[in-house]
Amino acid sequence: MSSNPLHAIMNPSSIAFVGASNNFTKMGSLQCLNLMHSGFSGDILPVHPKEETVLGKKAYRFISDLPYAPDLAVLVVPTGLVPDMLEDFGKLGTKYAVIISGGFKETGEAGKALENRISDIARRYGMRFVGPNCVGIINTQLPLNMTIVPVLDYNGKLGIASQSGTYVTQTLPYLHKQGITISKAISIGNGTSIDIVDCLRYLGDDEQTTAIALYIEGIKRAGDFLEVAREISARKPIVAQYVGGTEAGARAVSSHTGSMAGPDYVYDGLFKQAGIIRADTIGDVYKMGWALASQPPLEGSRIGILTNSGGPSTGIASTCNKHGLDVPEFSDEVQKKVRQFIPGHASARNPVDLTFHMDMSAMTDKIPRVLFDADEIDGVIIHGIMDTGWMEMLFPVMEPIMDISREDFLELRKADIDGLVDISSKHGKPLIVSSFLGEEDHAVRAFKKNGIPTFDSPEMAGRAMAALYEHFLIRNRTHDKPDNNVKMPENVKAIVDGVDTEAFDEYTAKKILRAYGIPTTDEAIASTLDEAVGYARSIGYPVALKVCSPYIMHKTEQGMVHLGIKDDESLEKAFNSIRNKDGDSAILVSEMLKGDREFMAGMSYAPGFPPCIMFGLGGIFTEALKDNAIRLAPLSHSDAISMMETLSSRALLGPYRGMKPVDMDAVASMLVALGRLALDFPQIKEIDLNPIIITDGMPKVADALFVK
Amino acid sequence: MSSNPLHAIMNPSSIAFVGASNNFTKMGSLQCLNLMHSGFSGDILPVHPKEETVLGKKAYRFISDLPYAPDLAVLVVPTGLVPDMLEDFGKLGTKYAVIISGGFKETGEAGKALENRISDIARRYGMRFVGPNCVGIINTQLPLNMTIVPVLDYNGKLGIASQSGTYVTQTLPYLHKQGITISKAISIGNGTSIDIVDCLRYLGDDEQTTAIALYIEGIKRAGDFLEVAREISARKPIVAQYVGGTEAGARAVSSHTGSMAGPDYVYDGLFKQAGIIRADTIGDVYKMGWALASQPPLEGSRIGILTNSGGPSTGIASTCNKHGLDVPEFSDEVQKKVRQFIPGHASARNPVDLTFHMDMSAMTDKIPRVLFDADEIDGVIIHGIMDTGWMEMLFPVMEPIMDISREDFLELRKADIDGLVDISSKHGKPLIVSSFLGEEDHAVRAFKKNGIPTFDSPEMAGRAMAALYEHFLIRNRTHDKPDNNVKMPENVKAIVDGVDTEAFDEYTAKKILRAYGIPTTDEAIASTLDEAVGYARSIGYPVALKVCSPYIMHKTEQGMVHLGIKDDESLEKAFNSIRNKDGDSAILVSEMLKGDREFMAGMSYAPGFPPCIMFGLGGIFTEALKDNAIRLAPLSHSDAISMMETLSSRALLGPYRGMKPVDMDAVASMLVALGRLALDFPQIKEIDLNPIIITDGMPKVADALFVK
Repeated sequence: MSSNPLHAIMNPSSIAFVGASNNFTKMGSLQCLNLMHSGFSGDILPVHPKEETVLGKKAYRFISDLPYAPDLAVLVVPTGLVPDMLEDFGKLGTKYAVIISGGFKETGEAGKALENRISDIARRYGMRFVGPNCVGIINTQLPLNMTIVPVLDYNGKLGIASQSGTYVTQTLPYLHKQGITISKAISIGNGTSIDIVDCLRYLGDDEQTTAIALYIEGIKRAGDFLEVAREISARKPIVAQYVGGTEAGARAVSSHTGSMAGPDYVYDGLFKQAGIIRADTIGDVYKMGWALASQPPLEGSRIGILTNSGGPSTGIASTCNKHGLDVPEFSDEVQKKVRQFIPGHASARNPVDLTFHMDMSAMTDKIPRVLFDADEIDGVIIHGIMDTGWMEMLFPVMEPIMDISREDFLELRKADIDGLVDISSKHGKPLIVSSFLGEEDHAVRAFKKNGIPTFDSPEMAGRAMAALYEHFLIRNRTHDKPDNNVKMPENVKAIVDGVDTEAFDEYTAKKILRAYGIPTTDEAIASTLDEAVGYARSIGYPVALKVCSPYIMHKTEQGMVHLGIKDDESLEKAFNSIRNKDGDSAILVSEMLKGDREFMAGMSYAPGFPPCIMFGLGGIFTEALKDNAIRLAPLSHSDAISMMETLSSRALLGPYRGMKPVDMDAVASMLVALGRLALDFPQIKEIDLNPIIITDGMPKVADALFVK
Repeated sequence: MSSNPLHAIMNPSSIAFVGASNNFTKMGSLQCLNLMHSGFSGDILPVHPKEETVLGKKAYRFISDLPYAPDLAVLVVPTGLVPDMLEDFGKLGTKYAVIISGGFKETGEAGKALENRISDIARRYGMRFVGPNCVGIINTQLPLNMTIVPVLDYNGKLGIASQSGTYVTQTLPYLHKQGITISKAISIGNGTSIDIVDCLRYLGDDEQTTAIALYIEGIKRAGDFLEVAREISARKPIVAQYVGGTEAGARAVSSHTGSMAGPDYVYDGLFKQAGIIRADTIGDVYKMGWALASQPPLEGSRIGILTNSGGPSTGIASTCNKHGLDVPEFSDEVQKKVRQFIPGHASARNPVDLTFHMDMSAMTDKIPRVLFDADEIDGVIIHGIMDTGWMEMLFPVMEPIMDISREDFLELRKADIDGLVDISSKHGKPLIVSSFLGEEDHAVRAFKKNGIPTFDSPEMAGRAMAALYEHFLIRNRTHDKPDNNVKMPENVKAIVDGVDTEAFDEYTAKKILRAYGIPTTDEAIASTLDEAVGYARSIGYPVALKVCSPYIMHKTEQGMVHLGIKDDESLEKAFNSIRNKDGDSAILVSEMLKGDREFMAGMSYAPGFPPCIMFGLGGIFTEALKDNAIRLAPLSHSDAISMMETLSSRALLGPYRGMKPVDMDAVASMLVALGRLALDFPQIKEIDLNPIIITDGMPKVADALFVK
């Protein structure tokens, strides 16, 4: 743990700053000023070629002039100057840097070469750096903030690592307004030396950080990311947005951080496997992240909803249901208690709908207490506390006739929310608030100040609660690990090495599968008709006859697959028909399966990813329905089970229409083995097992294609 | 059109108000005060049993005391008083009312009876009313606002009809902050006399309303709604949220407006058919509605994106792509022009990413002009104008060293957005802005003031642009209407009337289908083996043999379906096997189809809906994949085509894996005819045609079930 360079980078006691001047319109000057203003108590040492002082501090002409090796160097200089300056810091003995400057691999080949150069220099001097092409780092605990936007909240809770600098700078005032406080924030930039895996590990270790928010454009070490994330997500929530999965998204990513974006479904699989809660928008990342960071964990699926209005209550209830949460009707006992505090025609069932009601204490105190005390719900959502924000609006209407001061008027309805602000921590159950009012409202201000997530959207309150539920499920899932001690089956290496074509012939591919314990059709390879007849009789009719050649990829389309051959006579016809089309290749005699469902499994690669294992609906529906799930090898058994559970067509795996349920453990073992096969032989770039036919609930691979 | 009572209700010149007093904590008093304060220039006549004056206006003790029949009566009184008061207004000659009071059908049987009573009274006096159980109406043009929240923007553009009062009251300050202005707003309440169809028609007619936003908990006249909506959506955008589709959502709806919520997929089909853009959250309703109301229509799919940051640009681009919009790479010519205004390492490809840049005019003027002038894009999204909001935050950092006043400091970066505020109307192309800054930012304020949609979410900007694209597609879709002049086929009535069982036997069902021109398997009904053999030979082997009885619902499971019978001998065996299980029923001899794909069609009802026609993936996958689409009868030909186009498995309809493409017109004709059949015979409550087998691209119904 202590080897993570971010521990040092986030907690320097001295910082050399190169690129600040006395010209305040320059980004470097703004950053240095902000750093000085952020409360950082260590030394700040500006380096400037001409100025005596920079922003009021003594400046050093050369890096080599610095009085000692500072803990951290910050570079906001023209791209071309970065390598030499980094080297100068290396010589001086500084081990860590933040390189703000852009113009590296995100701009093309020349930039990439320059980026390689700084990597080499850092390696030579044992240095690690954040960036380049980033906006820097924030530690609200130290405190330390070198971005161009001031931080307004210290000692926050949400840890952010972002491949967009904007999401730790431009959004700071937005976060402040939302009442969202951050613990640490890292702008990863191109992630050359310190990447998202380092950031994730650091935020996972950081005690101040209670939930982690990630903005991701591309991951270079997906295998490591998975390993780290899955360890963290079992105890600390992680929310992430990935945006590179579309054509325009990928183009934007490439000119932004120079990342290679991968297909969306690969990231979706990675997130599921890693236990990461996926958000669709950056707003959702922050808001869901904040609910997770600020509230006690949700310990079940039962949500109580308290509102003053049917629209929001329906929106919240509906969002909860859609995301798997329950909104159970309260017991008679609880309804009776609630009814004491609501008008006669209002509903106490859940959602509780107070309707229009002047007495705010029902909503801010009396009913919440009933709900939190009852052993019937695991979390509460409240919408509709209308406090001074509403009164402010009403004042011009009332003033002419009420003869009252604005202050006294606002007091008339000021809600006492003292009981609410710590009710969630007292009961260990989360509370989320929604209100259409904003900063102008006393209650909204108080909620935000006290760390109660407060959103201007009823549905967002429901969605954030659903994120807590996702984390509940992730915490409670089976945390088995892939078994990395399984040895490569004997003789397989010789078989694989023996293949000198790009594709493997079907017979060889299936031989390898069987060596890994993956069941396939019973089959044999025949060179003559007599051999074929002999095998067919021993396998038992009906059989299939297929050409078996690494050169023929579309054997069905070429008429070289004959299915359901019933006797010697038909076999002879089929054999001769294939021989007439292809005089040389061997012919595969294969068992005909009488299955009732067809699935598929496969393996492929995405840039930076370990082998991606796919399982889904097979046969002719494969491309039409694209119903499949991806996980990265090595797979644990429960990874494989979860692939099946997330299919849209998962009902087909059960006792569907009188069919025997699929043996999911058997399928899982296949998938785990497929992952090991892929890891054992990285030269195999693609595997396609389609169809996998289910017979009496058991899977068997009926066709297999391996491509190097 | 002029017969729509809302024209009068929204534009009264006098209003009697019952339920206001001088006690300002009562809802009625607040509403009346707000009405007085809203700028309404007509007479307001309070009715109060005791007070001489109410809120400074002369009060009348009894309704019958009123000096004349006011145009509109507003009732905010205890539930029990409503009927008599309504009757008093009826006697007086007042034709229109808004009944705010709740306690009607949303509370149960007694309330429902009371609601029926007020309906009867209204009918007797030829009155029409909004409500009950609502918060009233707003007309920002007259102006007139009787809700409990003041309106801050007059002569707005977005028309709202809502089954939640909150969404036209509590949200008013929220809308104001978003810069969203409303034209008219109607709180529908229980919709007893004036329902959502009336509101929709009114807003469709209203010239001030440029887009319509709906919040829906349940529709009682779905057929009329469809007809009205599809006429309006061809020229004016409609956005809607429907929330009743979950279990908890339905419960909340029922205690809210007493509506019967229907399944989500039925509403989804209705919205698609009606050309309504569906929103998932009320925030999206407003924001998408506002983009549609305020901007020129989008005339294509090509979006230009201009940002100062890679994160938001990727989020916007990705959202656009996901919703079908293109983010095309700019031509060399345009890129060259853009490059004049951006730093060397920044991208001009689209998204244009300025990166950090002090000169705001690149983003507020120079580059937008290039983009709008070029004939390469249909709409523009800009993110990242950081104006005084950012400077405000920086001021405390800069003040100590800059010796400058706050005002002068803010001026340093104040963007000139004069060119941007009317660029969209000038070019007839929409502009949407995203900024993480709020009211504190001069540019954000200016955008909002000038009606440029400005959201605090990059993805929302993309989503709102996608709503404009949806409207483009809706405007340009085929607007064919269902043909309502088709006569019922001859003899069918006699066949249907002849069925005295709950279910129809398969033979009869298919006879009816064929009468409607829906192709089925060739088949005949046999009572004896000889007959069966005769039919089988004339149909041609192989055939299917099935028991044919209205009493046997699961004939396959009972072993009374024999498929693929190849000759007389097998036929005899199958015939006898069925006879052994059922000695009486007729036996159906049916053609065996050699198809390559199976679909299904069906008909069912949802409360308040005309027949719902379904088309989807059939055969064994029906329940496992639930891939289907719903439209309401009567269907137009293009309604039926669009059902096929929205299937996830639509690839199966094309030239899939060497199969002949499905004749979509033939399938559409089937579906249109199925809709007519359902309308001709409302006694038939359920139809299930599954499978529909595709042979050589043509559909034929292989099995049919009708239930009365």
